[in-house]
Amino acid sequence: MGATETLARFVLSTPSTAIPDSILHEGKRCIINYLGVALYASADPSMQILTGMFQEEGGNPQAALIGSAMSTSLQNAALANGYLAHLEDYDDTHFPTVIHPSAPTIPAAIAVGERQNATGLDVLTATVLGIEACCRIGLSVHPHHYDAGWHITGTCGVFGSVVAAGRLLGLDEGQMVNALGIAGTQAAGVRETFGSMSKPFHAGRSAQSGVLAGLLASRGFTSTATILEGRRGFAAVLSTQSNMEQITGELGERWELPNNGLKPYACGVVSHPLIDAMIRFRNDHGVKVEDVVSVTANVQPLVLELMDRQHPRIGLEGKFSHQHSMAVGLVDGGAFPAQYTDERVLDPTIIALRDKIKATVDPKMPEDAAEVTVTLKDGRSITEKVDHATGAPENPMSDAKLEEKFLNLASRVLSKDQSEKLLARLWDIDKVGNIGEIMEMARP
Amino acid sequence: MGATETLARFVLSTPSTAIPDSILHEGKRCIINYLGVALYASADPSMQILTGMFQEEGGNPQAALIGSAMSTSLQNAALANGYLAHLEDYDDTHFPTVIHPSAPTIPAAIAVGERQNATGLDVLTATVLGIEACCRIGLSVHPHHYDAGWHITGTCGVFGSVVAAGRLLGLDEGQMVNALGIAGTQAAGVRETFGSMSKPFHAGRSAQSGVLAGLLASRGFTSTATILEGRRGFAAVLSTQSNMEQITGELGERWELPNNGLKPYACGVVSHPLIDAMIRFRNDHGVKVEDVVSVTANVQPLVLELMDRQHPRIGLEGKFSHQHSMAVGLVDGGAFPAQYTDERVLDPTIIALRDKIKATVDPKMPEDAAEVTVTLKDGRSITEKVDHATGAPENPMSDAKLEEKFLNLASRVLSKDQSEKLLARLWDIDKVGNIGEIMEMARP
Repeated sequence: MGATETLARFVLSTPSTAIPDSILHEGKRCIINYLGVALYASADPSMQILTGMFQEEGGNPQAALIGSAMSTSLQNAALANGYLAHLEDYDDTHFPTVIHPSAPTIPAAIAVGERQNATGLDVLTATVLGIEACCRIGLSVHPHHYDAGWHITGTCGVFGSVVAAGRLLGLDEGQMVNALGIAGTQAAGVRETFGSMSKPFHAGRSAQSGVLAGLLASRGFTSTATILEGRRGFAAVLSTQSNMEQITGELGERWELPNNGLKPYACGVVSHPLIDAMIRFRNDHGVKVEDVVSVTANVQPLVLELMDRQHPRIGLEGKFSHQHSMAVGLVDGGAFPAQYTDERVLDPTIIALRDKIKATVDPKMPEDAAEVTVTLKDGRSITEKVDHATGAPENPMSDAKLEEKFLNLASRVLSKDQSEKLLARLWDIDKVGNIGEIMEMARP
Repeated sequence: MGATETLARFVLSTPSTAIPDSILHEGKRCIINYLGVALYASADPSMQILTGMFQEEGGNPQAALIGSAMSTSLQNAALANGYLAHLEDYDDTHFPTVIHPSAPTIPAAIAVGERQNATGLDVLTATVLGIEACCRIGLSVHPHHYDAGWHITGTCGVFGSVVAAGRLLGLDEGQMVNALGIAGTQAAGVRETFGSMSKPFHAGRSAQSGVLAGLLASRGFTSTATILEGRRGFAAVLSTQSNMEQITGELGERWELPNNGLKPYACGVVSHPLIDAMIRFRNDHGVKVEDVVSVTANVQPLVLELMDRQHPRIGLEGKFSHQHSMAVGLVDGGAFPAQYTDERVLDPTIIALRDKIKATVDPKMPEDAAEVTVTLKDGRSITEKVDHATGAPENPMSDAKLEEKFLNLASRVLSKDQSEKLLARLWDIDKVGNIGEIMEMARP
């Protein structure tokens, strides 16, 4: 039996009781984190582009748009709710692959969950299994696939969404194999678009592609049985090397969710240890922006590959500027959505500090680490070495910190009381009888 | 100015009067051929999978489904009408790249044309420019891109559809650049799915991706300005080598439509010279199936790469079996949709003949040529060398043959009178005041 059939069987045959409690808990944390960032992003003006298009299109109100009174088709809901998940670059990251697995997976799970009147536990289980599939498939082609220029959240995301959708739709094994094929042949998204709305669009489109694949397969649409391992399949075409054992090995024993971290900062994850260091300069050493002569950093290679942008022109570009992210870390003591507005990237103090920052690649630097030295006008130099960035798997965000993040983000569109009630219900999502209840609570 | 901006400017600034009459005539032939194959395919049972999903989804009746009384959203119409274009593998082929350019492009042009109440000439011009962009971008990455396993109709198809859609939507240059980015980052489709419904789905999905990109860009959605030439853009990520000069060189002077051939047979184009040879054995030499001992063929490499399938199990697989296509050529004297039914691939006479066919790759064989030898029970051997397959650019289908093909195909769902009226109106599409008129005439 090939990798595709093996995976299809696993994701359909695994009951929630076979998933360790710690993994289900991590899945809950993903859903809470997802809803927080999506609620915050729902107030972004760019959402009107999507909702305007949906209104022109019409359609039955099948599934809710997060942070809105509107419901729309399953496909459009998945598209928009996936876009919202990733717009602020504030979601989660599977560190071994830099996939943001919740962004494509959870929107598919909740949209299809609404159609099926699924329980909260069903949606949670579908989410966990979707993320597992997505991350394992990412591992099978890593690092060759991402290095080639693919946005792995867009490409591998289709597998997260189709597994979640297909499981909730009650596909049989043959249908799930076809659904994986229909989804996998839609895998897309290149990194050239980073710093524009097209980056979060990848997450939305892959959420939608998985829902579409599930719906088509449930009605008998056909595809290949070997999308993952085939000679002209996903791994062969979208990567120079692959290892199917990463997909099929120790299924049900090894889980990828413990390698997934929730982001403390609203920008590219590779800059997070740098921001940690800058915040330490500010909070632990009392460094002020006007005292800084220069800042030098030793960084892992992806920092310059992805985030070397001295002069971002808009907020979305700022999210892919390590210089901007470091500057706001020192000046503002954090890197939240407010630090990535179009106004903030044009602030003269921030611009001046960005110009003083210089990063050098150290190929041996671990992906969640960095070393930063600041030189001050009084002649002093201070060095901070960050071994594991905040939010990395070895330094995870606590449940309490996650609650704080959720309540802060949700407060942009929900009242405090509403946010707190929703949060409490999300911790109990495995006891919710119908996922539609949660979606109604998330309406402003 | 980079390739993306150059192309955007060209497709927006070229009036129909700047396009040679011969190219506009070839564009008409593409539209006629497209509508013929789509009308025929509209009776396929698999269409009910799509229409069932659309009905569940609801939505405003923005654009017509070919061969149906139904109208649906622009996106769903593009998806379904693109699927229909390619379902029978009977559409057209840009020989230098094996792109089927009409399948993704025309559905986008007619769907958006309906929204805009565009004239027939506007839709024809958008079609010609969309096909030009699609084929040139294909050339820029050929043969490396296809050789890697991409279905080039799915990938490059997004550029045909977005150019057609964007031009009809009246995008400005900046919006068109963004639209190309949004479309290009959706480029997808792997060859592993060949022989299943997912192959024609690629054409539909790329038609839809281009429409979506155009609609989003028209409302202000952003992307990269360098999707084609960028370091992490389409060509760099989806091909090992590329040449942007193929996109930007001699724009408005060199046209690709003369390199596009209309298919005489409803199967993979690389088998067409083989079918020609088998028909010659039958018609010119009186060879009968019961007299055949063996058939040997010298073929270009793609024949075995794409169509080496001794035992197709269903009609869609038969379309990717050179053995099946050759067998029906001899037995039936043609390779029309009737030769690719699930029943026909299981016919004992055909199966027995397929087993007698052996092809050998000759790397020097041109893509539209083949040499076939049949050995008979009486000891004779006959060899036929086909220099240019029927329908290839150097041996094009005549307008009269195209009319015959159209009327045969359309007769599956339209009356003779209706088919003839529609055909006459299509030859005059440049005089049609509103494309909606054509779409109404194409309703059964």
